[in-house]
Amino acid sequence: MLSDSVVEGPLPNSREVAEFRRLWDEIAPIGRDPGTGGYLRYGYTEPVRRLEEWFAATATGDGAHTVEPDGNGNLIAWYGPRPGPAERAGDAVLLGSHLDSVPYGGGYDGPLGVVSALLAVRALRRAGRTFRRPVGVVAFAEEEGSRFGVPCLGSRLLTGALDPQQAAALTDRAGMTLAEALGGTPAGARPDLLARIGVFVELHVEQGRALVDLGAPVGVASGIWPHGRWRLDFTGEANHAGTTRMADRRDPILTYAFTVLAANKEARQRGAHATIGRVEVEPNATNAVPARVRGWLDARAADVETLDALVEAVRAKAAERAARDGTTVAVTRESLTPSVTFDGGLIAAARRLHADGVPVLPTAAGHDAGILAAHLPTAMLFVRNPTGVSHSPAESATDEDCAAGVRHLAALLDDLAGR
Amino acid sequence: MLSDSVVEGPLPNSREVAEFRRLWDEIAPIGRDPGTGGYLRYGYTEPVRRLEEWFAATATGDGAHTVEPDGNGNLIAWYGPRPGPAERAGDAVLLGSHLDSVPYGGGYDGPLGVVSALLAVRALRRAGRTFRRPVGVVAFAEEEGSRFGVPCLGSRLLTGALDPQQAAALTDRAGMTLAEALGGTPAGARPDLLARIGVFVELHVEQGRALVDLGAPVGVASGIWPHGRWRLDFTGEANHAGTTRMADRRDPILTYAFTVLAANKEARQRGAHATIGRVEVEPNATNAVPARVRGWLDARAADVETLDALVEAVRAKAAERAARDGTTVAVTRESLTPSVTFDGGLIAAARRLHADGVPVLPTAAGHDAGILAAHLPTAMLFVRNPTGVSHSPAESATDEDCAAGVRHLAALLDDLAGR
Repeated sequence: MLSDSVVEGPLPNSREVAEFRRLWDEIAPIGRDPGTGGYLRYGYTEPVRRLEEWFAATATGDGAHTVEPDGNGNLIAWYGPRPGPAERAGDAVLLGSHLDSVPYGGGYDGPLGVVSALLAVRALRRAGRTFRRPVGVVAFAEEEGSRFGVPCLGSRLLTGALDPQQAAALTDRAGMTLAEALGGTPAGARPDLLARIGVFVELHVEQGRALVDLGAPVGVASGIWPHGRWRLDFTGEANHAGTTRMADRRDPILTYAFTVLAANKEARQRGAHATIGRVEVEPNATNAVPARVRGWLDARAADVETLDALVEAVRAKAAERAARDGTTVAVTRESLTPSVTFDGGLIAAARRLHADGVPVLPTAAGHDAGILAAHLPTAMLFVRNPTGVSHSPAESATDEDCAAGVRHLAALLDDLAGR
Repeated sequence: MLSDSVVEGPLPNSREVAEFRRLWDEIAPIGRDPGTGGYLRYGYTEPVRRLEEWFAATATGDGAHTVEPDGNGNLIAWYGPRPGPAERAGDAVLLGSHLDSVPYGGGYDGPLGVVSALLAVRALRRAGRTFRRPVGVVAFAEEEGSRFGVPCLGSRLLTGALDPQQAAALTDRAGMTLAEALGGTPAGARPDLLARIGVFVELHVEQGRALVDLGAPVGVASGIWPHGRWRLDFTGEANHAGTTRMADRRDPILTYAFTVLAANKEARQRGAHATIGRVEVEPNATNAVPARVRGWLDARAADVETLDALVEAVRAKAAERAARDGTTVAVTRESLTPSVTFDGGLIAAARRLHADGVPVLPTAAGHDAGILAAHLPTAMLFVRNPTGVSHSPAESATDEDCAAGVRHLAALLDDLAGR
């Protein structure tokens, strides 16, 4: 373990901070909206392709012998011993995260984990370490689900959690299918590739303020709250907004609005999270009572029972109001990710990386690590976020905390694969 | 007056009904969405251009000597005495309506008035009448405001109610300006053209159920409720929908939803109409607390005092809730049309068209007739709508009622201009 040079001591040194900043600046302009400063890095689009080219070039420059696409849009750079007859099943250590963003999102959610993994490998190389096991750095595709509606699209395909034929037919808002965006049907499950991997560690910017409250630059995740997405289809009757008597209306925007407020209240009462932050209206004209309103419920809770009760309460409130409004509501589950508990051995190893111990926290966000956790020992590290804001241009982390994250990741990598 | 052949008698004859259907069928496919059956006839687009070509050809075939564009997108077909030194100012009789639709709207709102005007002229010609005054049939542009956001765009430009330079810079949702759509800056006010017109009559499908309740196929309008559009800009803070504690959020969709329900309640309490049937959300992603929500309030009431009180109450409720949500709301008036009272002489003349009297009703919808009423004697006829539904593919009128509308319009035209 590189404890002396990589993790111990109060702060990363100025060279490490400068090195983080230098690599970070290389990708900062890619896909950034000049007006808001937010990122438009949707899966399988030009900005992500540019990030992937940068990723491959950087990894190769740091000694990666192979940059392997998995046929699903995920990309793995391999270092250390080459796969071959000598490689044992489950021998490889995988680090990484994703490169895509939510619409007008921050720059840290995803790319920080990829950049930190590249820098962790680089730090070990510079320290003269070699790898006794194969080491991969992965850039997962479309983790946010902002383009095709399915979060963790790349890791779900890789692990077989999503059927490639079904995925191929997913469409973005412009009507383009995933197959068209990818240039063919995705490869789907890759048990051959998964079998080579023994452990996965994802570093991620924290998306809350727990580390701020704890005064710690880096934390380790205990697990992920169960969470899912439900589509809410409200149907009424299109009509003239000027002439239709209020009593004669069947206005689905009323049912939608009531449901938005009910979801918020039900979540607060349960210590859970519920959001209806996406909506589509037909015909969406100022002088028309809408025919249809579609909303999406994002719901998360500490356990499955609470989550189920929350969604059921929202459904019941929506149906009750629909009866009053003369509308209907249909609730369709689009995705559900059960609770994830990360690997106890990895959590313990990560906690030991700092003399004072590294704090352990749960998270309510889905991550590719949550998908991989069903298949292999998995852990996550979090880097402090001063505002706690994420999925927004206001998302941030200091260069010092990011460099501290790299130190922790490098130490864990050294622990797992160094020699 | 053509009372014997055109209006008296219980029903239009089968030839008149068939003639209406024949002309109606010519335009029925133009701009119709095959999926919903609704119309996508936005101002200054290809479907409207096709309707205008059909309009010009039909009018010319029925003896129009001139089809005159006014430089604002409005089109007038002229019959009878040609303008010239002999024409007295304010001599012409103008009939007509608009050709554009709301998104996925019905086919009757607008085109029924144009088709009925064409058929009224044709009926008089066939009856051997000639015109002692110039007679025009007008097709107004972009009455619904569905493309550039300003209702009655064509008639506002013609009458000088809208500055042509300001109008030129209006943009549609794709970012195209009106000047680009029109091929140049609109001509704006045409006092020369207005001075030639002595009276305007617009026939329109009813957008409510008053004539159903009265058992009458045709009615005459007393006036138009004051009405307007207000833009509501709700601003919060974009954040991760999964990880942000409910207490840490500043979610503008909550303020929006509360305002939707408040507007409905405030309107009901005042016997007024309020609708927030159009919304835009940023970033509009399932897993993001929105940064911004924009809604549009359509409000209408029997008098200006009630309308002002309604909008003020909605504004106050929105601001109160914004303070609770940690968001802000800004209310911007986009348009306001004061009360319109139609011409007493014309209303009396229209009432006398049927032996039992033609019922008189107010309307809460804006119309080009409401814009022209500020400049010249104006009236409106309504044709019964069995469901009362408008701005929807379910909007309808029977062929018999439409042919009855043509009879009434023809009789009024004969009264005003026949010889």
